[in-house]
Amino acid sequence: MTKPPDIDRNVGSASRRRFLREGSALLGGAVIAGGLAGSEARAAENTGNLPPNVPEWMKTPGDPMGTQPYGAPSPFEKDVIKNVSKTLPQYLSASGRTPLQDLDGIITPNGLFYERHHGGVPTIDPAQHRLMLNGLVDRPLIFTMDDIRRFPSESHIYFLECSGNPEYKKPYGKTASDLVGLLSCAEWTGVSLKLVLQEAGLQPGAKWVVAEGADSAAMTRSIPIEKCLDDAMLAYSQNGERLRPQQGYPLRLLVPGFEGNMNVKWLRRLHVTAEPAYSREETSKYTDPMPNGTAREFTFYMEAKSIITRPSGGQRLTAPGFREISGIAWTGRGKVSRVDVSVDDGKSWQQAQLQEPVLTRALTRFRLPWHWDGKPAVIQSRAIDETGYVQPTLAELLAVRGDNYVYHNNAIWPWRIAEDGEITNANA
Amino acid sequence: MTKPPDIDRNVGSASRRRFLREGSALLGGAVIAGGLAGSEARAAENTGNLPPNVPEWMKTPGDPMGTQPYGAPSPFEKDVIKNVSKTLPQYLSASGRTPLQDLDGIITPNGLFYERHHGGVPTIDPAQHRLMLNGLVDRPLIFTMDDIRRFPSESHIYFLECSGNPEYKKPYGKTASDLVGLLSCAEWTGVSLKLVLQEAGLQPGAKWVVAEGADSAAMTRSIPIEKCLDDAMLAYSQNGERLRPQQGYPLRLLVPGFEGNMNVKWLRRLHVTAEPAYSREETSKYTDPMPNGTAREFTFYMEAKSIITRPSGGQRLTAPGFREISGIAWTGRGKVSRVDVSVDDGKSWQQAQLQEPVLTRALTRFRLPWHWDGKPAVIQSRAIDETGYVQPTLAELLAVRGDNYVYHNNAIWPWRIAEDGEITNANA
Repeated sequence: MTKPPDIDRNVGSASRRRFLREGSALLGGAVIAGGLAGSEARAAENTGNLPPNVPEWMKTPGDPMGTQPYGAPSPFEKDVIKNVSKTLPQYLSASGRTPLQDLDGIITPNGLFYERHHGGVPTIDPAQHRLMLNGLVDRPLIFTMDDIRRFPSESHIYFLECSGNPEYKKPYGKTASDLVGLLSCAEWTGVSLKLVLQEAGLQPGAKWVVAEGADSAAMTRSIPIEKCLDDAMLAYSQNGERLRPQQGYPLRLLVPGFEGNMNVKWLRRLHVTAEPAYSREETSKYTDPMPNGTAREFTFYMEAKSIITRPSGGQRLTAPGFREISGIAWTGRGKVSRVDVSVDDGKSWQQAQLQEPVLTRALTRFRLPWHWDGKPAVIQSRAIDETGYVQPTLAELLAVRGDNYVYHNNAIWPWRIAEDGEITNANA
Repeated sequence: MTKPPDIDRNVGSASRRRFLREGSALLGGAVIAGGLAGSEARAAENTGNLPPNVPEWMKTPGDPMGTQPYGAPSPFEKDVIKNVSKTLPQYLSASGRTPLQDLDGIITPNGLFYERHHGGVPTIDPAQHRLMLNGLVDRPLIFTMDDIRRFPSESHIYFLECSGNPEYKKPYGKTASDLVGLLSCAEWTGVSLKLVLQEAGLQPGAKWVVAEGADSAAMTRSIPIEKCLDDAMLAYSQNGERLRPQQGYPLRLLVPGFEGNMNVKWLRRLHVTAEPAYSREETSKYTDPMPNGTAREFTFYMEAKSIITRPSGGQRLTAPGFREISGIAWTGRGKVSRVDVSVDDGKSWQQAQLQEPVLTRALTRFRLPWHWDGKPAVIQSRAIDETGYVQPTLAELLAVRGDNYVYHNNAIWPWRIAEDGEITNANA
């Protein structure tokens, strides 16, 4: 944990004021003089008159109410879908990434929430679904979904992130989604796991809870009891409506800030134990070999991380001028306290503005006003969280972790902007 | 604005503690002894063994990745759709209500966001869409969507509510959605309208901005300049993704806390003026005749309001016992400061717990632990906002506003619970 470096906190503000003074430079006058016919410009100056070009969609009625009982995006947004590789050998154990560079704010709409599963998505009848709670408890219990929903509820905005986001061997992603798209954020509603465990009564010696999912892969992870008695939840709603099948319908475990796959989907069993299960997904996978021959296991926290989503890889800047640099930052340890942005390949850093309110274990949107001068540039962001931890560079991570590390890649991702405005992954 | 009444602030806490002591009463032992075969209960007691009934969906692979490039809800949630009357004479000018009683938290998922339009939903090509800004400005401007997106952006969670939610003459709704379903809440991203107006330069005498939409009904509302220079936005994203067509794709005006139809969808023109336009939708409609022969006009703010969503109309309590009363509260004036709940037909009130963080001009979720004794009951909520304003009863509103009032019905909505657990609108 390094001391946050000194940075120039005023440069960002100066850029913003310059934008406002050079306001018309934003549009470059192109909107009035260059891009429009003279008649439109004159029409714009006649106060109160409609411009001559009334669009077709104003002249005829649109779609009647009820055309879409459950609404869908515009057909003009048909390319904004989950990012799934087209060249996988099979699709039952696979990942679907959120198209981060096409999104704004911090909420991920449910249809674009990232997916990662190991045996396909089950279709579960909620009336048949059961959650069993057994092991070192006074009263083993089996809950229906109605039982779960009768507990007192709570709602929180939390991010979820897969631990292999990305895996180290694959930093060749083209877009923000390719790189860190196994990341989403929603408002979750459910019951505090602590309340549920208290229903059963924990026995002395209870140190872990082994959570098992009801999909064909039966994802199994061991959760430390301290987390279970802290902010862990059994969630049944995301962004207001019931969980999506891809996110665990009808019930999932939520362990805010912890590795994605610990948030077991299609939750069917909580087995309270003295020892962890050492399941496949916390031994064969989700452990990291270190250079000295040992391996890290049970690395629960997703550490502070950030990425610029705009302008970012796969996009193109069409002309020099004002650009807002925008991105997201997050940390499993609590709140993001600061995000720095560099526009000169890491030589200097400026403090970005954080969108308030900054929430615990949720995404935080950051922004920095910037003026692109048309020359090649490398832009990047780094997050600092409330513990003082600073997001490291890839080189710093590899120096500590070596070549065989797989998970918890929270490196800084720089974007290279070419003279023609094309944007690529500077690490690839 | 009445002084908030004294209420017993401790009763809610006592109920919560009783729930925890009587913990097993939640499940009534029915889960173990009554509902299950003996073999399942024994299996639950054998630590580490799977119960004998492994569900079918664990035995075969689920849907492969990519089955849904843009995810959809579970088929078991097929009845959770927008609430549209089946008996309207036509569907081009109509309302689609959010199914509030089926939702949790404060975020409304985009597919269930309420709709109200007057000429159907247009399909607009964002590349063709233009926003004209003219009138009392130094520089009339025409913006493309690319221009709008190049401004500095901001994101906020705000509610939107139609002013006729419900109209006074129709308090016969069966469910929370029937009554106040023209209400939703999302995270909006866009540009501050103030910044955009500064681009054009406001001239002296500029007192209003007349906003016009590009649908076939060309919704037109006049917005006071103070609001335009305060927190008004031009929004292009909702809950992270681009606006839905039903919510104004590709661009809408957002005037947080103000009447729903002032948040003009499919925004095509901002005309800066000295006087309001007195458009149809602020004269023929959206004005309220008072008993003394005058009419209220330009009643901008949506005042403090709340409703219990669970248990609520159309639902049924299956048995006595612990129930969490849950609902939503909101105010266009800023933050909800308190919500009181009565379970005895208004004789006494208890303070409900508010889900933190409480946000300005957003929905606030409230909850109260409650134990239903199986007897008939009337439950209701009332919101108090940061100005001290208290949500009134329907009788109090009608006494002031008379019989010809239409809009701004923010009355308390009580639910009647019968002995058989059926829940109905106590005002119908």
